[in-house]
Amino acid sequence: MDEFDKYRVPDLIAKKRDGQKLNKDEIEFFIKAAVNGKVQDSQLGAMLMAMYIRDLDDDETTDLTRSMMMSGEIMEWPNHWRGKLVDKHSTGGVGDKISLALAPALAACGMKVPMVSGRGLGHTGGTLDKLEAIPGFTVSRTTSEMIDTLETVGCCIVGQTKSLVPADKILYATRDVTSTVSNKGLIAGSIISKKAAENIDALVLDVKYGKGAMMQAEHDARELAKRMVAIGNGLGITTTALLTNMDAPIGRMVGNALEVAEAIFCLHGNGPSDLGELVTSLGGHLLHMIGKVSTLTEGCNKIRETLQNGTAMKCFERMLVEQGVNENVASQLCDIQNDVFDVLPKAKYVTPITTSRSGYVQEIDAMMCAVAAGKLGTGRTKSSDPINYAAGLELLVQIGDQVIEGQQWIKVHHDMDILPDEVGDLIKTALVIGPESIKAKTLSRVLDVIRGEST
Amino acid sequence: MDEFDKYRVPDLIAKKRDGQKLNKDEIEFFIKAAVNGKVQDSQLGAMLMAMYIRDLDDDETTDLTRSMMMSGEIMEWPNHWRGKLVDKHSTGGVGDKISLALAPALAACGMKVPMVSGRGLGHTGGTLDKLEAIPGFTVSRTTSEMIDTLETVGCCIVGQTKSLVPADKILYATRDVTSTVSNKGLIAGSIISKKAAENIDALVLDVKYGKGAMMQAEHDARELAKRMVAIGNGLGITTTALLTNMDAPIGRMVGNALEVAEAIFCLHGNGPSDLGELVTSLGGHLLHMIGKVSTLTEGCNKIRETLQNGTAMKCFERMLVEQGVNENVASQLCDIQNDVFDVLPKAKYVTPITTSRSGYVQEIDAMMCAVAAGKLGTGRTKSSDPINYAAGLELLVQIGDQVIEGQQWIKVHHDMDILPDEVGDLIKTALVIGPESIKAKTLSRVLDVIRGEST
Repeated sequence: MDEFDKYRVPDLIAKKRDGQKLNKDEIEFFIKAAVNGKVQDSQLGAMLMAMYIRDLDDDETTDLTRSMMMSGEIMEWPNHWRGKLVDKHSTGGVGDKISLALAPALAACGMKVPMVSGRGLGHTGGTLDKLEAIPGFTVSRTTSEMIDTLETVGCCIVGQTKSLVPADKILYATRDVTSTVSNKGLIAGSIISKKAAENIDALVLDVKYGKGAMMQAEHDARELAKRMVAIGNGLGITTTALLTNMDAPIGRMVGNALEVAEAIFCLHGNGPSDLGELVTSLGGHLLHMIGKVSTLTEGCNKIRETLQNGTAMKCFERMLVEQGVNENVASQLCDIQNDVFDVLPKAKYVTPITTSRSGYVQEIDAMMCAVAAGKLGTGRTKSSDPINYAAGLELLVQIGDQVIEGQQWIKVHHDMDILPDEVGDLIKTALVIGPESIKAKTLSRVLDVIRGEST
Repeated sequence: MDEFDKYRVPDLIAKKRDGQKLNKDEIEFFIKAAVNGKVQDSQLGAMLMAMYIRDLDDDETTDLTRSMMMSGEIMEWPNHWRGKLVDKHSTGGVGDKISLALAPALAACGMKVPMVSGRGLGHTGGTLDKLEAIPGFTVSRTTSEMIDTLETVGCCIVGQTKSLVPADKILYATRDVTSTVSNKGLIAGSIISKKAAENIDALVLDVKYGKGAMMQAEHDARELAKRMVAIGNGLGITTTALLTNMDAPIGRMVGNALEVAEAIFCLHGNGPSDLGELVTSLGGHLLHMIGKVSTLTEGCNKIRETLQNGTAMKCFERMLVEQGVNENVASQLCDIQNDVFDVLPKAKYVTPITTSRSGYVQEIDAMMCAVAAGKLGTGRTKSSDPINYAAGLELLVQIGDQVIEGQQWIKVHHDMDILPDEVGDLIKTALVIGPESIKAKTLSRVLDVIRGEST
């Protein structure tokens, strides 16, 4: 008997359609059949819709994730790296340049960080796009090249290879056109299967909620975080999630080269405080999770130390060189004496925008900023679109700041001879000024930590 | 703007996914897009699953049905036929040869019956397959050939043409592989769109429930019937549904040639009583619905008359000739003096099966009979399978009959040298004998009548 005769695909679809639970064997069969072209497109669409509407429980999501992970290459690492292999995944935000500082900081602590990252699509920027703003940087690396880089530097940030989780590529392409993207089980499966294929020991998830996040509501983010933590741990990866606020852009910069610049400031110990909080928290958790330190505070301190003593910066510089950047260029970019924009692309124009009233900054809407930045060319609406690396936004104020009418609060970096009105208007709507000052607690990015249940 | 840019298909899918109602314009767009290849297979599968799980209300089903109907040819008839164009549709049963007797009976009453029928698939036999047991009979007719036949004879029974409701072909093929067949809105749309494309004045639906029907439970059949009646009337076709019992096979014969023979007995006024009841009820309703008679009883009597006075038989004979049967063959088949099996294919063997105990016949399970007949080759499991026209079952008893142990109760007509045990066993399980006699009311096939609400 052919292995694909074991189940009839319509029977599996009918089971999920009727709200029944699919077992491990059935899910494995379905994913294998999909990867082997034994599931028709219409059947895949129908199954994804049934999964979306009926939802997947933790067992089903774990089975789905494992089956997806097993559909392609599982990365293999030298044995003596065991216990040191860590990574972070974010559900996507605006101004999110955390990976650029976090991976080198972890490497500086002796970790191995084989970070497989993505490109921006929709309103959120992609880590790979940001790195490509650096002249010479290449994101395509084979697994054996990754091993070399991890051996010498400790971290790399690369694009997904063809052999990694082919099931996710098939499912994702179908989810995209069938309106079945935003199901938590399917999201969790897509994210965790790719991280699991990295064959890491510990994973920290940055699950964002708020105006600039995929999940607007905190309870949705919490539910997704819980599910991913359960699945990650179920697959043997120590997994913790941080619920973090994504109402306002992270840091002060939005845009590819601008965010690289801000990550470099952070690596010099000079970054904005919210970015620093996120990098140290996420990194601190990872160090604590794998037992490198005995308390979370100790972990956070250790990360902060690498940002302040230049060791993280050194790892970043060496990673750039390993990933194709000319040694002199890398050294110039990473030297605190130099202007990073001698290396990074710089926009032709910088147009400041002023406040229309006096008061306290209540809100800087990350989604409005992202849409405005998108119109400057910082992102893509389809994968073949070119990117403007230089364009972006530079915030001059933060939530809680007192401002007076007519004060410059943002600078728009752009290559258009005249800044279009619609961009200016979008940016103006992003800023909310009120008469009341804001309490300090609302300024913290990290809302909660979700850990796996000890079993 | 391209007409297919009006909506994004994923947006329409998402709307149905979230349980919202699709409006007329959206449904029309979707069906038009599907027929024009603007909907990807995966999107069609996802939409059908969303429609299946979230269901379609009467408005949506009516809009779907109209859009499907409009996707192809709408048959056109001479003006003077208006008010006489009628048809019947059955949801499918075992031993269901009603159309073969009903269409000629209606023609004999002066009706025009442009019956577009289907083939058997699964456990139920198809009217077209039965008719093809008659040497020379052809089911493929153009609309203009149909007009000729309807002008001279009054009825024809033909296969679906390519130009009739192409949307149904696309949807049905996808429903079949995505486990989205058994949704009442989609079933109703598929059935009524085809009948509406026949451009008829009145339609009677035979909605079957019970062991041998698509719907096992009465309430499901009632719900489907109500919906189809609402939609048919909504599209301007006077539509009534009869809820009829399908626990035991209709009449005494199951199998293609055997059922043709029984239909001919019926047309001679000698058919089994339940078949006679169904033909006169369904026909009587149609005559009453279009105002040919002033009471239902009068309508039933008129149909019964055509079966007894030979006028229906004459229409049947002329229809056969119009549809390719040699005149002498048709006349031989329809002459009460002759054995129909001089013309119809006859099985090599007839194996009787006896009862295992004495008592009263409580049940003859139509599904068991259908499965057993299928194993003799009477039907298809895929559309390319050949059919054995001669094989089938001949019941010698009916529900309520008193039987004694060892009495022959069924004859199996087959071409296999030895009747396989599994067929014999299936047939034996079909018969339930109990000590109690059965009340006469349970012998009636017609349970209820569902009419459109007067508006």
